[in-house]
Amino acid sequence: MSLDRLIEKIVELQNPTVAGLDPKLDFIPEQVQREAFGRFGPSLEGAAEALYLFNVALIDALWDIVPAVKPQCAYYEMYGWPGMRALERTIAYAKSKGMFVITDGKRNDIGATMEAYAAAHLGTVEAAGRTFEPFGGDALTVNGYLGSDGIQPLLSVCKERDKGIFVLAKTSNKSSGELQDQKIADKTVYETMGDFCEGWGRSLPGAHGYTGVGAVVGATYPAQLSELREKLPHTFFLVPGYGAQGGGAADVAGAFDQKGMGAVVNSSRGIMCAYKKTGDPANFAAAARAEAIRMRDEIAAYIGRISLV
Amino acid sequence: MSLDRLIEKIVELQNPTVAGLDPKLDFIPEQVQREAFGRFGPSLEGAAEALYLFNVALIDALWDIVPAVKPQCAYYEMYGWPGMRALERTIAYAKSKGMFVITDGKRNDIGATMEAYAAAHLGTVEAAGRTFEPFGGDALTVNGYLGSDGIQPLLSVCKERDKGIFVLAKTSNKSSGELQDQKIADKTVYETMGDFCEGWGRSLPGAHGYTGVGAVVGATYPAQLSELREKLPHTFFLVPGYGAQGGGAADVAGAFDQKGMGAVVNSSRGIMCAYKKTGDPANFAAAARAEAIRMRDEIAAYIGRISLV
Repeated sequence: MSLDRLIEKIVELQNPTVAGLDPKLDFIPEQVQREAFGRFGPSLEGAAEALYLFNVALIDALWDIVPAVKPQCAYYEMYGWPGMRALERTIAYAKSKGMFVITDGKRNDIGATMEAYAAAHLGTVEAAGRTFEPFGGDALTVNGYLGSDGIQPLLSVCKERDKGIFVLAKTSNKSSGELQDQKIADKTVYETMGDFCEGWGRSLPGAHGYTGVGAVVGATYPAQLSELREKLPHTFFLVPGYGAQGGGAADVAGAFDQKGMGAVVNSSRGIMCAYKKTGDPANFAAAARAEAIRMRDEIAAYIGRISLV
Repeated sequence: MSLDRLIEKIVELQNPTVAGLDPKLDFIPEQVQREAFGRFGPSLEGAAEALYLFNVALIDALWDIVPAVKPQCAYYEMYGWPGMRALERTIAYAKSKGMFVITDGKRNDIGATMEAYAAAHLGTVEAAGRTFEPFGGDALTVNGYLGSDGIQPLLSVCKERDKGIFVLAKTSNKSSGELQDQKIADKTVYETMGDFCEGWGRSLPGAHGYTGVGAVVGATYPAQLSELREKLPHTFFLVPGYGAQGGGAADVAGAFDQKGMGAVVNSSRGIMCAYKKTGDPANFAAAARAEAIRMRDEIAAYIGRISLV
């Protein structure tokens, strides 16, 4: 009912990072595309197969050193229902290798509809008297603009099924301040959202000091990261914006507590497309692994050993 | 590049309403489920077929009197990738009957990722040298929490492909005020979001006074609806919350301008599940049609004839 499984995996691997799986075709080496389209023809099914093959190779190269993957729904939806099938298969494969899966969907809606999203991504559904697990992620990113009743159904599913959520607080993009930095009385919108996270998290306490309700806070805003780390002692952070978006290890250092705990830093293109820097697409998975190790060690240099106690 | 096609369809049918297609299995009559599961066995494919058959029957009963449908993504995602396939097929069928399709996804992300959502729901993607239209909606609901750069990619696709978006302003749910009613200087968060819509819409002017950037404003908050109608003269409203959520025709009257223009009111369960009131599941489509006519006439009594000039 919390993010404890993620936290324990981070400690086990001494690596507080997550590999983003945002596999648009532009990012996928020729030989992988050739194999996939060769099998399925020039179709969305072929594209989806390319996504899946690419992800499998990345997961095979990362699972023993990186605790989690974060597939970004948009890059699967972009290839229609076959893309969503590749998302489901990717999640299943990552879980079979023991990785924690954060489905990055930023879903949001009113309560009754949020029940459907919660079932889709973290729960199960009934059909013809049987139970199915549609996508099967371990955690889901969500947008809290609609307030508590859009979050409540997620909390119930998290409690029942030992899952977690990450609510957008301060996002990594340039224009995030247009709304998020605006002041409500003496607090910004993103601080207000952070406070909501602390409140919602109370119903999902964890064994290691952090609840099942995390927050998304971008690496591109290091001052706000440190500020929120201080103000939200029970809220675990998912930190996007490292690497391709411009954030570095120094920028994310403030996301962690004294024990090197409290955050997981995402890199998507940095890891997926590491082969573009080495110029060796045939060995894209090895390049991804090397970059994942470099990133882990770079962050470790700032936070030291990560411990549960 | 705007919502003109929706507006013209509303005028043609003299009906400013949209039928929500939120087909969870609980809402689908036994005989439809039997047919679908009979064909595909007890599986998510069977569930998805039930969704599609239900939607086709509803669309057949509504297309000549209701201008638009609004499939809610969550109820398709809930049935995994087969559910997403049912979404794609539903959108294609509704369009083949001349209906305008508003895909209710409330999608949101940073710019690069929003490009992928824009391609998925309103645009096209390239794969193996060919062009595919993944889901093919005419408009998409989105959440503006991330600010302009999360909206910009949508505006580009809307301009190129004559599509529109609806941005969440004041949502219909009970707890929407927790964030949305908070004050930023002298304006609430939902007014601020409404102002953003007017600004974003400038790049997508329409022929009938409304831009391609609409706003979602709930029927359950009639005072705010009237207030926003006044303050946002170029922003077309998508109004959920009528019917099952408690809003009535008097509540939505304030969403319209002097010409009976400016808004489209959604009813989902009210129409889909009208057969539960008549107690005649065999004729669920006829019950849906009768309720759609009742709703149209009830709203017409408040706003009169809808005209373009």
